[in-house]
Amino acid sequence: MGRLRGQLEEQVKLATLRNGTRDGQLVVVSRDLKRAIPASSIAPTLQAALDDWSRIAPQLLELSARLAAGDVSGALPFDPHAALAPLPRSHHWVDGSAYVNHVELVRRARNADMPPSFWTDPLVYQGGSDDFIPPTADVPVPGEEYGIDLEGELAVITDDVPMLTTVEEAAGHVKLIMLVNDWSLRNLIPAELAKGFGFYQSKPATSFGPCAITPDELGEAWQGCKVHLPLVSHINGTLFGQPNAGVDMTFDFAQLIAHVTRTRRLGAGAVIGSGTVSNYDRTSGSSCLAENRALEQIAHGKATTPFLRFGDRVRIEMFGHDGASLFGAIDQRVIAALARSTGG
Amino acid sequence: MGRLRGQLEEQVKLATLRNGTRDGQLVVVSRDLKRAIPASSIAPTLQAALDDWSRIAPQLLELSARLAAGDVSGALPFDPHAALAPLPRSHHWVDGSAYVNHVELVRRARNADMPPSFWTDPLVYQGGSDDFIPPTADVPVPGEEYGIDLEGELAVITDDVPMLTTVEEAAGHVKLIMLVNDWSLRNLIPAELAKGFGFYQSKPATSFGPCAITPDELGEAWQGCKVHLPLVSHINGTLFGQPNAGVDMTFDFAQLIAHVTRTRRLGAGAVIGSGTVSNYDRTSGSSCLAENRALEQIAHGKATTPFLRFGDRVRIEMFGHDGASLFGAIDQRVIAALARSTGG
Repeated sequence: MGRLRGQLEEQVKLATLRNGTRDGQLVVVSRDLKRAIPASSIAPTLQAALDDWSRIAPQLLELSARLAAGDVSGALPFDPHAALAPLPRSHHWVDGSAYVNHVELVRRARNADMPPSFWTDPLVYQGGSDDFIPPTADVPVPGEEYGIDLEGELAVITDDVPMLTTVEEAAGHVKLIMLVNDWSLRNLIPAELAKGFGFYQSKPATSFGPCAITPDELGEAWQGCKVHLPLVSHINGTLFGQPNAGVDMTFDFAQLIAHVTRTRRLGAGAVIGSGTVSNYDRTSGSSCLAENRALEQIAHGKATTPFLRFGDRVRIEMFGHDGASLFGAIDQRVIAALARSTGG
Repeated sequence: MGRLRGQLEEQVKLATLRNGTRDGQLVVVSRDLKRAIPASSIAPTLQAALDDWSRIAPQLLELSARLAAGDVSGALPFDPHAALAPLPRSHHWVDGSAYVNHVELVRRARNADMPPSFWTDPLVYQGGSDDFIPPTADVPVPGEEYGIDLEGELAVITDDVPMLTTVEEAAGHVKLIMLVNDWSLRNLIPAELAKGFGFYQSKPATSFGPCAITPDELGEAWQGCKVHLPLVSHINGTLFGQPNAGVDMTFDFAQLIAHVTRTRRLGAGAVIGSGTVSNYDRTSGSSCLAENRALEQIAHGKATTPFLRFGDRVRIEMFGHDGASLFGAIDQRVIAALARSTGG
């Protein structure tokens, strides 16, 4: 992007509106998140744009500039409730656990050592990418007893990334950035990980914020392939945490990309997550209840904060230095999944 | 499909031809795999067909019937070398390990006990679905020292599957069946699994056979959501194994689907794999070198069969009772990945 080339600013916010199709309608959103203009004449969907990014991106940037200048007809108010996830489905969703102090803390709470290699060799797991949850949709879970938890994160979207990409090369493959809630079912995790094959049932569908934004939208807050801003989480309207995503991120996004391309290439539209944002400075709070409970366990010998219950609401948002919301908010309610949740 | 409803046969073989796009060109292939007819007027791609399967499938069945009757113009010779994977990319690829005797055997070779729950609770891991390898394409791997292994399997493709689908309901969601080689890098597995997050680098891109076929194409061989036919693997032209995929499959595909929808729904086009096909009857051989080496370890205290080397060729195929190839063959060569393998 422009910042890497040191010249041209390349700023655009993209969202996907519900239009009855699985992949929705790509729109360019204004910097203040108030207006949106369909990008239909450029690319029907965000996946289509990513499939041909080097050709499509300049057109989206131009439309964004015209929207900012008021030099465009057909702009509509932007309603996050009409938004799907920026990519309603993707072909690859791999989530890191890049804030290693979080891993260390959670392990300490259960008296488990952490291998020193965790500081040099990233942890990643692959998640489901066929059903990304819209930013304000209800989140159905079969049972409260599963231990429902948020995980506030950031994720990047790449173009095609070759196998054996180096850290230096990886940075240029970061095309867009998103807000993530990587829902976790904590009480399913121990038995599932004990089987040795990693997470599956314990990591259900993932939620994303309304807009995917170019790194240049972050200005100086995008440095070293990290986002240097607080990630603000509320539970039922009460501030839960605001750790800075640029602090204590052991592996930046370029390092994560290099790690995941050691034995494979990535297709355009691959989504790479940071893992739960977490700071050593505990006054900034947490981005997941498991960390909060680990701190209670260490301090008091017992975790007292419960996991989420049906009806609980989680809001995750990030603000620029000017106080403006950068991605729009993930603002969702956890609900009981009925015996059958409708597909599609 | 028809077999479940007990009446109408619903037979079609589908393939995807290279046409310069990422998702290729959907074609209907004749039962003898000799001819193909573009399905452009019905659906441009297999994903598009699956997105609207109940409406599209009857049209594909009709085109297949007309192709069989010679009542169609525009049919061309079917060339597996022109085929991509039936789904060149998907939004969900989850692979089971349903032949539990295989798991038990591999563990026994390294003196590890297997938890009894493995007989009742399926093992699954999620794989990369942005880069499915075409049936006859070369397979680039960065190093022979990674312990390159085949895993001959079957996989099913589903339509939309709701969360909390029961085993009884699951069977009707199996729309298509494919041949799979779930390439594994054995020497990366121990360190990766020790990290606790499951496979990632050790499970690179997956290969698929030329055709995805409806269950009815299997006739009586599709019973109880299992394929009751030998899966035939050759390495460098020598028969390596032909275990029967319907024997010793502890969890059938309906059970695997019920397992994976316990906490999530699946989007149309989800791919669910069986895991390495393996029989207790060792005279039928194996579908992966790891099992072969485990047997050597148990019998002789030492594994002598090496993993694959650059230039080695793996062929995986399945034949009906009439001797006809059902899916076409996966027939590929392992090659050295250069410092940069091209994306896209």
